[in-house]
Amino acid sequence: MTWRATVLTLFPEMFPGALGHSLLGKALQRTLWSLDVRDIREHGLGKHRTVDDTPSGGGPGMVMRADVACAAIDAARASNPNVPTIYLSPRGAPLTQARVRQLANGPGAILLCGRFEGLDERVIEARNLEEVSLGDFVLAGGEIAAQALIEAAVRLIPGVLGAEASPDEESFSQGLLEYPQYTRPQSFEGRDIPDVLTGGNHREISKWRQSEAERLTKARRPDLWTLFEKRKH
Amino acid sequence: MTWRATVLTLFPEMFPGALGHSLLGKALQRTLWSLDVRDIREHGLGKHRTVDDTPSGGGPGMVMRADVACAAIDAARASNPNVPTIYLSPRGAPLTQARVRQLANGPGAILLCGRFEGLDERVIEARNLEEVSLGDFVLAGGEIAAQALIEAAVRLIPGVLGAEASPDEESFSQGLLEYPQYTRPQSFEGRDIPDVLTGGNHREISKWRQSEAERLTKARRPDLWTLFEKRKH
Repeated sequence: MTWRATVLTLFPEMFPGALGHSLLGKALQRTLWSLDVRDIREHGLGKHRTVDDTPSGGGPGMVMRADVACAAIDAARASNPNVPTIYLSPRGAPLTQARVRQLANGPGAILLCGRFEGLDERVIEARNLEEVSLGDFVLAGGEIAAQALIEAAVRLIPGVLGAEASPDEESFSQGLLEYPQYTRPQSFEGRDIPDVLTGGNHREISKWRQSEAERLTKARRPDLWTLFEKRKH
Repeated sequence: MTWRATVLTLFPEMFPGALGHSLLGKALQRTLWSLDVRDIREHGLGKHRTVDDTPSGGGPGMVMRADVACAAIDAARASNPNVPTIYLSPRGAPLTQARVRQLANGPGAILLCGRFEGLDERVIEARNLEEVSLGDFVLAGGEIAAQALIEAAVRLIPGVLGAEASPDEESFSQGLLEYPQYTRPQSFEGRDIPDVLTGGNHREISKWRQSEAERLTKARRPDLWTLFEKRKH
């Protein structure tokens, strides 16, 4: 079965966006995955298809209505059943490669893209949404975050990246940052490729790469390093 | 002066992508910010415009050449001087709202989007690149990450979000996650808006929102909560 992303958005014209190009775009054409983009406004109220209202208790901006959002979610679930429904929000759990891998191994996901000041909290409770955040920064809406999540998941689907793929050696697969890479030319502006990489001793190369990955992780991401150390024991 | 993003990519057709729509797209048309997308392949070598080569020391995939990447960076710097050059990579420092705010307050940024297995490490050293990561997950390339960073920065530029904006009350502005939002209808599937929000006592509403923001942060993001507590003292 094809991995299927159902996106609920007020800006369907933002999709496929960057996902329509390069290897992911080709994989979409070859139906290695599928993308169903739905306009939340189809569930809007009245002749103006209203989707939002002012925040209870006051404050700037507008909040997406519970009845409208739930109608959109229910319709999406009817056509893409048994997948997690994810609300992209800076309040959510930070996305990790482990969660991406789980999603890629499943049948797909429904992704609700917020806009405005936020979403009526009752939607999250009533529909048991999984709140996911890309990181500790604020976007104008969930659309680019949804594209990031979809790209991260779809690239793990067998056949999508083809021969360029090496998901086992990359960042986070062992819980470490990736080691430095080099390629020709041998010398660039007086900087040479480290001797060990051109020496042909594969055991030494492996050792060097592992120690560089550990050094970088320790220096840049003590939080990841602590987790890595714990997992080893 | 207009805030200016210069993007270096092998897939210029991915831009503006989602950035071309909604309020950011309108702001782009109104030249509240500008986007200069450049094809790295213009600096490729030989008649095939080669940009990559196999990794020194072996391994899967391809690595972007130092000479090609540096030529692209140098040309970008000539036309967008005095801005940070950011390489989007899962090895980088996680992007934060504080860094986004700094970038939005500056004249712009040059964003280098990686593809393949990575970038020759000497580029990062020789051109003093700032490595920035969206989070602990792996994308197929830096393009969607660049769009996320641009969206996060541009939405803070005065006039871009217009009346919908409320950057001071949102997630991370105080170091806390955002409090729950509600809007009409008063009752939805048996769930009511909390009484305090409809009571009209602004002091009580403020207190409730602050305590909800603290409760959510403590429960979901003990890391942010610890930072918040430290900053208070």
